[in-house]
Amino acid sequence: MNVTVHGRTRHYRTVTFDRVRNAVRLVEQRLLPHEFKIVATRNFRETAAAIRDMVVRGAGAIGASAAYGLAQGALAFNGRDLAKFSRHIETVYQTFKAARPTAVDPVNAMNSVRAAMRPGKTVGERQALALAAAEEFADEDVAHCEAIGRHGVKLIRNGMRILTHCNAGWLAFVDIGSATAPMYAAQAQGKKFHVFCDETRPRSQGATLTAWELAQQKISHQVIADNAAGHLMQRGEIDLVIVGSDRTLGCTGEVTNKIGTYTKAVLAKRHGIPFYVAIPLSTFDWHLKSGFDIPIEERHESEVLGAWGALTSPKSEVQSPKSVKQAYIRVANPTSGARNPGFDVTPPDLITGIITPTGIFKPQDLWKHRCRLGFAD
Amino acid sequence: MNVTVHGRTRHYRTVTFDRVRNAVRLVEQRLLPHEFKIVATRNFRETAAAIRDMVVRGAGAIGASAAYGLAQGALAFNGRDLAKFSRHIETVYQTFKAARPTAVDPVNAMNSVRAAMRPGKTVGERQALALAAAEEFADEDVAHCEAIGRHGVKLIRNGMRILTHCNAGWLAFVDIGSATAPMYAAQAQGKKFHVFCDETRPRSQGATLTAWELAQQKISHQVIADNAAGHLMQRGEIDLVIVGSDRTLGCTGEVTNKIGTYTKAVLAKRHGIPFYVAIPLSTFDWHLKSGFDIPIEERHESEVLGAWGALTSPKSEVQSPKSVKQAYIRVANPTSGARNPGFDVTPPDLITGIITPTGIFKPQDLWKHRCRLGFAD
Repeated sequence: MNVTVHGRTRHYRTVTFDRVRNAVRLVEQRLLPHEFKIVATRNFRETAAAIRDMVVRGAGAIGASAAYGLAQGALAFNGRDLAKFSRHIETVYQTFKAARPTAVDPVNAMNSVRAAMRPGKTVGERQALALAAAEEFADEDVAHCEAIGRHGVKLIRNGMRILTHCNAGWLAFVDIGSATAPMYAAQAQGKKFHVFCDETRPRSQGATLTAWELAQQKISHQVIADNAAGHLMQRGEIDLVIVGSDRTLGCTGEVTNKIGTYTKAVLAKRHGIPFYVAIPLSTFDWHLKSGFDIPIEERHESEVLGAWGALTSPKSEVQSPKSVKQAYIRVANPTSGARNPGFDVTPPDLITGIITPTGIFKPQDLWKHRCRLGFAD
Repeated sequence: MNVTVHGRTRHYRTVTFDRVRNAVRLVEQRLLPHEFKIVATRNFRETAAAIRDMVVRGAGAIGASAAYGLAQGALAFNGRDLAKFSRHIETVYQTFKAARPTAVDPVNAMNSVRAAMRPGKTVGERQALALAAAEEFADEDVAHCEAIGRHGVKLIRNGMRILTHCNAGWLAFVDIGSATAPMYAAQAQGKKFHVFCDETRPRSQGATLTAWELAQQKISHQVIADNAAGHLMQRGEIDLVIVGSDRTLGCTGEVTNKIGTYTKAVLAKRHGIPFYVAIPLSTFDWHLKSGFDIPIEERHESEVLGAWGALTSPKSEVQSPKSVKQAYIRVANPTSGARNPGFDVTPPDLITGIITPTGIFKPQDLWKHRCRLGFAD
């Protein structure tokens, strides 16, 4: 999307590849919204660390990062021994797989890169095929998000107030985003609407990333505490919920997404508010048979016990990145610990529809429509 | 309750009155959990400001502060003119009423002080009666919380995992607390249980105050993000919910409490988990006929857009108050605004029972039992 920094507007993708330096270039998302900066990872271990440490986060963005990272690892291999090369690729693969265990995009992305490499008869050929496949994954992610926008835009009517959770915007993908795609498409059609961004504790991706994105695109929005959505729904101030997903089970229609998503789905159901999940095809998991089998990442308790942000006074706006000093503060009682599950699972009975690149489906019907969704039996 | 500071243990009440200095003494709750400090307000305007600015917060604590504050205002009056004195009292009353519009405890507390003053024939007599009534309100608050503990303790079985929201502990009352009263009583009976404290954004009273209280009393607990309770309920890790209230409608059984309470009630209902509200009698509102008539305080957006805490590293514990520097950080995008409703209303169909000083009642039956609850027709 377009980003305006110091008055200059330029188009960016969240993840790109630098062939000359064999580096993955990423928007450093932990500095946002206070500073917009592109960083480069010089080898696959740095790229995996960037995923683990959430320099880059979000379903499609870590999928593309893992795809590029696998190609980066392949390209860094010296030698002609195909067996050694395969063992090296296996190491790279497992490193990325372990970086964010709940997400399925990295695994799906790497599987497609690995499959694309297979016909290569030499290490050199396989390296070239890996990079081409990674580029294809990234381009496809963008195309999928555009298609999600085309289908989802029909759900947004003039004057609507839309709730979203966490960040499933362009920062969470290569471009455009999943949950935001219908919003950007609606804006392009001249529709007026307002977005409530759940701040999304503990890492506050709604307050930092989604609010920054929407502000950049001049879409009307407000941040709310995760606690406030129930009250707003009760008072009739929310018309539609759109969220993303980190792993959606094709067999059951269960949606894994950032912790708190399930709560919003339960609330939406009580109030009869449509609840949609927007996902590209790379977020589907056709293997797991139950949401209880999804590994739920337990993250460090310091995320819950404190917060990151820019040092400032409550009344002043932080505008200039140059003047921003970021800091961690301990909010909670210093002798208390925390639980910090990173994700939760929303069952299909709470979901109105899944917005995919090929159309909007009932979550219960995903398996039936897997061919239409582009998946072979 | 007992507080241990620098190895010395002493008993404290949240709110007391200093007759010599005509001052209200308060635990400065905005410094907790990093520093335990008693502050004194020298006149009624300072006391009202302490309520408004949340030096003191919580249903019973601001009730007692307003009762003492009204007496403080009365005692500061010079002169013998009863008409002038009454006008002065009216000014004091309105000042406290405006400090936290959603809460009913201050109004109920001041009404009882005002009624107690009426028989006084001189300014001096009325001043003395006001102070006596304020002391009585505070003592009654403690007695009510003890009685809540006696009734509520039966709900807690060995091994239970209890969720609570915000702080309805002794810091929110004069002593003991409402939602915590059954927990402290259960501990005294040797029962083992674990408490999950919702951090309770935006002001994080769960992470700061409830976690501090429970740590002081050595009760097993963990802080969770407000987003996490749904997931824990889904996985069968929560057995009971107990919260407090800032205003409970006797006519309808609707419970006003800190923003996010309604969400937890909706989740508990879905999972068949008992959801209890613990309140002393001063929290009842027998006048309003609908939860929609309760004024919901909209607080400053800076609370949602940032956070307060101690400057530290994510891995270190802040232990010594001397070394603690507290700061505000801006978390959210600097060009975004926020909505910040402070409370929400939970309807009676989501509430298993109201734990009162005279027993546990269905919320729908409060009106029927108003005599047993100690309220005349």
